[in-house]
Amino acid sequence: MPKTAPIERVDIHLGERSYPILIGSGLLGQRSSFDAAPDATTALIVTNTTVGPLYVVPLQEALAQRFRKVHVLELPDGEAYKDWHTLNLIFDALLGHGCDRKTVLFALGGGVVGDMTGFAAASYMRGVPFVQVPTTLLAQVDSSVGGKTAINHPQGKNMIGAFYQPHLVLCDLDTLATLPRREMSAGLAEIIKYGPIHDMAFFDWIEQHIDALLQGDPAKLAHAVRRSCEIKALVVSQEEREAGLRAILNFGHTFGHAIESGLGYGEWLHGEAVGCGMVMAAQLSLRLGHVDEAFVRRLRALIERAGLPVVGPALGVERYLELMRHDKKSEDGEIRFVVIDRPGSAAVRSAPDAVVREVLAECTR
Amino acid sequence: MPKTAPIERVDIHLGERSYPILIGSGLLGQRSSFDAAPDATTALIVTNTTVGPLYVVPLQEALAQRFRKVHVLELPDGEAYKDWHTLNLIFDALLGHGCDRKTVLFALGGGVVGDMTGFAAASYMRGVPFVQVPTTLLAQVDSSVGGKTAINHPQGKNMIGAFYQPHLVLCDLDTLATLPRREMSAGLAEIIKYGPIHDMAFFDWIEQHIDALLQGDPAKLAHAVRRSCEIKALVVSQEEREAGLRAILNFGHTFGHAIESGLGYGEWLHGEAVGCGMVMAAQLSLRLGHVDEAFVRRLRALIERAGLPVVGPALGVERYLELMRHDKKSEDGEIRFVVIDRPGSAAVRSAPDAVVREVLAECTR
Repeated sequence: MPKTAPIERVDIHLGERSYPILIGSGLLGQRSSFDAAPDATTALIVTNTTVGPLYVVPLQEALAQRFRKVHVLELPDGEAYKDWHTLNLIFDALLGHGCDRKTVLFALGGGVVGDMTGFAAASYMRGVPFVQVPTTLLAQVDSSVGGKTAINHPQGKNMIGAFYQPHLVLCDLDTLATLPRREMSAGLAEIIKYGPIHDMAFFDWIEQHIDALLQGDPAKLAHAVRRSCEIKALVVSQEEREAGLRAILNFGHTFGHAIESGLGYGEWLHGEAVGCGMVMAAQLSLRLGHVDEAFVRRLRALIERAGLPVVGPALGVERYLELMRHDKKSEDGEIRFVVIDRPGSAAVRSAPDAVVREVLAECTR
Repeated sequence: MPKTAPIERVDIHLGERSYPILIGSGLLGQRSSFDAAPDATTALIVTNTTVGPLYVVPLQEALAQRFRKVHVLELPDGEAYKDWHTLNLIFDALLGHGCDRKTVLFALGGGVVGDMTGFAAASYMRGVPFVQVPTTLLAQVDSSVGGKTAINHPQGKNMIGAFYQPHLVLCDLDTLATLPRREMSAGLAEIIKYGPIHDMAFFDWIEQHIDALLQGDPAKLAHAVRRSCEIKALVVSQEEREAGLRAILNFGHTFGHAIESGLGYGEWLHGEAVGCGMVMAAQLSLRLGHVDEAFVRRLRALIERAGLPVVGPALGVERYLELMRHDKKSEDGEIRFVVIDRPGSAAVRSAPDAVVREVLAECTR
């Protein structure tokens, strides 16, 4: 795509912890992109062995105009490394370079790098500033808002972490040019999600532009990322008034997590499992009488066009139920689903096992 | 001492994160002490192999009247275990018992147990509630207020942690009956500190009652702990308006940390190093022209009566300077001291090396 996008901006309002999200092309190599980053003498860029070789040099050069010292740490790539041992490499680097409490951490990479760098920033000397530079579509829409950071524990994903807000998020759309097609689709799953739960006009727009999005059109991507961040920010900010509202962001995730966990994490990408999970959750919403068949067909068609699976793996109905009962969101063994009450509006509900069994029988093979 | 103290209470006002500190005798075995603890089905008591055998049974029995399940985890005792490996034992226990995000953690022990349990509570599922039950005098005055939690890193103490507030702090003075005399003195150092930096009337009171305090008089201890917590709370709450004010709590700590670090941590107790460090900082204040000799003599006499050292180890003047330049509080290599401006009022200042050398020459051997 020859086109470049104008810079879009979303402001996340959190009182003293407010910060901007900038979305555009070529941002990470420009000094001015970092105007909102805090002043300090030292920066540490945390990246991984896949993303580092592609983008660390321009980022380092841009930051060298702002910071006297710019250190780089490359972590091994992959969810398997999202553990204490790898996190500790960040602390080792910070202490090894004599970094003080003003040092700014930059997370250059996907969700794993962002989650670990964010947790390291939250914990180093009880908190140093950090900037997210997400380089996958999923991370751009998912980790830009909400302040969730974490590492995994052998007994559970994201079990150890903190809520900690970045000072700035920079979504450089150019980094998506090198993203594998499968990961592009996985990111689109989390974008499509915002239609059924909150904004069907956005859903219409995605339907119109899904091919351009898949082909990496920067202007279209800029809009999709911005609107996703806006909706997520709205939902997260209302959480304090409407307890549990944030849970609607997990549309498709109850079924999705069962798929990921049942197949073994990494077999399907998270976004792929969520894409398929949304079809199943829509089917459940239909059977509970909230939406019609046309809506389910429409959602399913878009998810399919995005390159995502729409049929779940044949884990067996009982195995699905067992996995979902062990989900973090279940309460006293009762499975909680995000159900579409009407297109554009969602709520967290339980459902009779018999109905869930029907959905599983219909949507897996 | 046959006397028991009336229950004293200090309320820490932090908006949504406000909590009470209860101070009194026999608190940890009474169900009513825990009225301010959050409701949940499960509690996990974290303690160590020294404190656990003494106090875990009455605590467990009291909590069993509030929580359906009360689990206990005993950690090895000592600063050497304040690391990731031991912290992970807490996460293992939480996950092993299937603890959810409502589970309440209880820290039963001294500063190490409190710091680790607090950080585990801050990080488990991004935050679960916790209650401090400090069983050393130092922990009762020091970790009751301020929300500091942390573990050590091989390259530095308390380098990894979080600011995280407890839901309740229970200072049971009966637990001090089994505290070794040396640790009692160490705790008194942090109590004496509040006189010179903020409240000379309190200092007068401590002078009058130092013997009763050392002998464990519950009513006197209750007052000393309450007043220390009150002053610390005042200083910490003003911090947002007067940036850096909190640093005055480190009176005696610049010299003290140099002693601890120079001798190797554990050789002197933290409170012992701080006691001696306060004499040195008072001497510095004198030489800078802020206080008179009578004040220094008076402070020195009280610290001595509290059973604390008043002369620093002979590390050598240059070694002291080197150690202090590497202190967390130093800025660009300039050493920062908490100086008494006049008795009852302190500020953070630098000082000419020549003057610091004089102080070191006079106060060490």
